[in-house]
Amino acid sequence: MQNFKPYYAVIFTSTQTKDTEGYSEMAKHIEDLAKKQDGFLGIESARDGVGITVSYWESLEAIKTWKQNSEHLIAQQKGREKWYSWYNTRICKVEREYEFKL
Amino acid sequence: MQNFKPYYAVIFTSTQTKDTEGYSEMAKHIEDLAKKQDGFLGIESARDGVGITVSYWESLEAIKTWKQNSEHLIAQQKGREKWYSWYNTRICKVEREYEFKL
Repeated sequence: MQNFKPYYAVIFTSTQTKDTEGYSEMAKHIEDLAKKQDGFLGIESARDGVGITVSYWESLEAIKTWKQNSEHLIAQQKGREKWYSWYNTRICKVEREYEFKL
Repeated sequence: MQNFKPYYAVIFTSTQTKDTEGYSEMAKHIEDLAKKQDGFLGIESARDGVGITVSYWESLEAIKTWKQNSEHLIAQQKGREKWYSWYNTRICKVEREYEFKL
């Protein structure tokens, strides 16, 4: 932990509308695109009722650049118009981390 | 956003062993207990394959106190011995937040 280098997490929580047409294709496309961005470190997703996606980034600059990516902007727009009834995006600094492995 | 007051998030991601006996009862008990702690702000969970639980707290002190809660310590121990094949705990400072509602 002494050499822990802080990085950033984006916690995206959401609930969906009943209209899921095209959603899973877009989600996969956007995740694939995120993985190609500079400063991308990782992504984890789960949904049951509420959806939680956490993506990890080297810097706030990397998050800002990704937020403004043109394809991502279109996906965000469609998300608001069609797929999400609610969402929340939290930008967080990861200060400490503990891992357990069997 | 000008008056945004930072708070903390604990991102707990995990994968389970095949032995889930007693897990859901314990998870519910521990979540109920967390909700009674000083400084607790909220909790969100989803699992599909990977499990993601994010809890929100007013301060690092509140997180530390909760980490050391005696019933929580027992649950953590059982988690390592029985239910989890892997987990990761990240302590994060929430610096910004954006919400969308239909």
